[in-house]
Amino acid sequence: MVEKGLICTNCGRSYELKQLHYRCGSCGEPLEVTLYEGGGIARGNALAQSVLSRYKAFFPFETLDSRVSLGEGMTPLVSSPALAARAGIGSLLLKNESQNPTWSFKDRGTVAGVQHALKLGIRRIGTVSTGNMAPSVAAYGSRAGLETFVLVNEGIPKEKLSPIGIYGAHLIKVAGDYGRLYHESLRIGQEQDIYFINSDAPMRVEGSKTIAFEICEQLAFDMPDFVVVPTSAGGNLRGIAKGFREFLRAGLIHRLPRMVAAQARGCSPIVKAFEAGRLEISREEAPRTIAHAIENPLPPSGNEVLRILRKEEGLAVSVTEASILEAQRTLAMEGFFVQPASAVGYAAVLKLAEAGTIKEEDRVVVVLTGSGLKYTAALDRHTLEEETCALENLGDHLLQYRGL
Amino acid sequence: MVEKGLICTNCGRSYELKQLHYRCGSCGEPLEVTLYEGGGIARGNALAQSVLSRYKAFFPFETLDSRVSLGEGMTPLVSSPALAARAGIGSLLLKNESQNPTWSFKDRGTVAGVQHALKLGIRRIGTVSTGNMAPSVAAYGSRAGLETFVLVNEGIPKEKLSPIGIYGAHLIKVAGDYGRLYHESLRIGQEQDIYFINSDAPMRVEGSKTIAFEICEQLAFDMPDFVVVPTSAGGNLRGIAKGFREFLRAGLIHRLPRMVAAQARGCSPIVKAFEAGRLEISREEAPRTIAHAIENPLPPSGNEVLRILRKEEGLAVSVTEASILEAQRTLAMEGFFVQPASAVGYAAVLKLAEAGTIKEEDRVVVVLTGSGLKYTAALDRHTLEEETCALENLGDHLLQYRGL
Repeated sequence: MVEKGLICTNCGRSYELKQLHYRCGSCGEPLEVTLYEGGGIARGNALAQSVLSRYKAFFPFETLDSRVSLGEGMTPLVSSPALAARAGIGSLLLKNESQNPTWSFKDRGTVAGVQHALKLGIRRIGTVSTGNMAPSVAAYGSRAGLETFVLVNEGIPKEKLSPIGIYGAHLIKVAGDYGRLYHESLRIGQEQDIYFINSDAPMRVEGSKTIAFEICEQLAFDMPDFVVVPTSAGGNLRGIAKGFREFLRAGLIHRLPRMVAAQARGCSPIVKAFEAGRLEISREEAPRTIAHAIENPLPPSGNEVLRILRKEEGLAVSVTEASILEAQRTLAMEGFFVQPASAVGYAAVLKLAEAGTIKEEDRVVVVLTGSGLKYTAALDRHTLEEETCALENLGDHLLQYRGL
Repeated sequence: MVEKGLICTNCGRSYELKQLHYRCGSCGEPLEVTLYEGGGIARGNALAQSVLSRYKAFFPFETLDSRVSLGEGMTPLVSSPALAARAGIGSLLLKNESQNPTWSFKDRGTVAGVQHALKLGIRRIGTVSTGNMAPSVAAYGSRAGLETFVLVNEGIPKEKLSPIGIYGAHLIKVAGDYGRLYHESLRIGQEQDIYFINSDAPMRVEGSKTIAFEICEQLAFDMPDFVVVPTSAGGNLRGIAKGFREFLRAGLIHRLPRMVAAQARGCSPIVKAFEAGRLEISREEAPRTIAHAIENPLPPSGNEVLRILRKEEGLAVSVTEASILEAQRTLAMEGFFVQPASAVGYAAVLKLAEAGTIKEEDRVVVVLTGSGLKYTAALDRHTLEEETCALENLGDHLLQYRGL
């Protein structure tokens, strides 16, 4: 195994992997683990492997701790001819990340972060989140027997707190500017040796690589044309893009798909910068969208996402609230009940297909980032019909649908 | 492929598989698909297969319809040394069925039922459920483009209705005795050619077999001593037991594990009959438990579960409300947030280990049937701590845990 280090995604400055580094001391941009230039998939039955064991050649862990994995990843890639037809494209595949231990893609990054913490001998971890990351870090931290701190904003409603609190981490409501909390937590973490696995921490990005690895395997290494990712901090898109890049360097695939960063129009700092041809994002001053899980006014990896899109012919696209809700319903009627943030991906496909950017013959993968059960308040935005009948009349009631 | 038929689990009378038969016309007991006496696991990468394709040799489907699978099954089996130690046993493995498309084990039976409906050319399906089965059938029915009827009881609260309604099936509230509805739906279904995939429909039992198949693969065909299943109608336990039996007949394994039916004491008709040495269950007159998903006062496969336990040295055990809640919290603190019904399995392990029935050297599998997000009201039964601090004091606040 080659000794890995961290490198600044922007200026290329190097850092050691064995210390808690997240962002470049020179330019402030996010760091990442240096690219793997080779490696293969471990032999064996995927049913009996974890993502860290199957893709071991792409992680800096010689041995895996048995207290870490909860069975994350290995999620299905499901073809939907119906949704492809609706968009007017050749093929649509849904990577359903809601089938993870805490029902979002976050578990992949968390398992990598926790394994890294154990390797470094760090006994305390944390995260800043009110969304999918909080329960994920709470679950993995408790499982591994680590002192775990989940920092949430003061105003978080009880119904969002309890599904985090049940895992038994320290749940700390922090009063003050939530945006500053991200940077403050990293600073305090470095001081006090608490490993904060925040949204775009290098090891979280490494975990997200496995989404790309699995897509490659599931498509028998025949690459799709586009991979659409609902984008908040930017860590997930970065990870998926890095995964494809590493499989390309390893000779496992022969071309990269085009990455698409999908955001809600009500909070789309990356899309705005991309469309204006800017190299840096600006803060979204009045973020407002039902896609709460991706409502990040100043994505910490926003600039790096812009760099990736520029270098690899990617795209950024934003969609309206109405189209998000419509996509949520459409996905549910195809069997996938996702949270609004996840529906942003398919809404983006519809928009890009309409514009002719995604073409009739293209094959598109959409990442469904998390379960609809995580934000049931969104159900109130849908008109759901129900019928009523007496048991004695059930036969007659059903008969009316006979001709359908 | 051998032409399969249905056989009465009690009197052995035969029925055709190509018609809608559920229960024996002579003795009233449930039917099942005749045992597969051979067969193997399809070659290929599990990541790119569905349970119906990987275990094709154990299903009566020559071709699989691409509109059916949502990527069900292939769930992880996760070892928990901590929970094993707490129970004082050698090894505990959790089969996490919450990582299914609608976040419960029901998806396995639904996919088999829907595939069977399509094979028979039936365009309308249904189910009777207020629990995990309703969203599962709604999701798969919509996906396959079938007219889908979900019959629920009149009093169901809105927060349980919406996550079913989002999938777009006909949601019919039926006024009248809920217990009778099960039998009425089957009768009307046979009359009107509506395929009701109820709790213990033969194809639902077939779907549950795949839990056993995967456990065998995940343990490299080295059998556990006990497999513990939270039990309601009895269809899931029947399926898992049948799966082990078929792998035994196929020569893939060399012994059967002992099945354990776990119920909540507040609704434990199977356990009561088992303990009294009776051959038939009696109706639980005043069912009352927080484990709603298994609160079935007269399980339609209850007698067949008793027959299986008797024949294969199985066990039935009931647990208190307090122990269910405690097990739910304990599982969450190990990273698994399950619904109360699912926690019944681990509560049963603790009880059986305490009693010395499960021994120190035994290896035990517990099936975690569904996600805790499906019944968040249970969270109010737990005392969850939270802390508060100002952003300026965060460093000091975290410092207090430094010595831990």
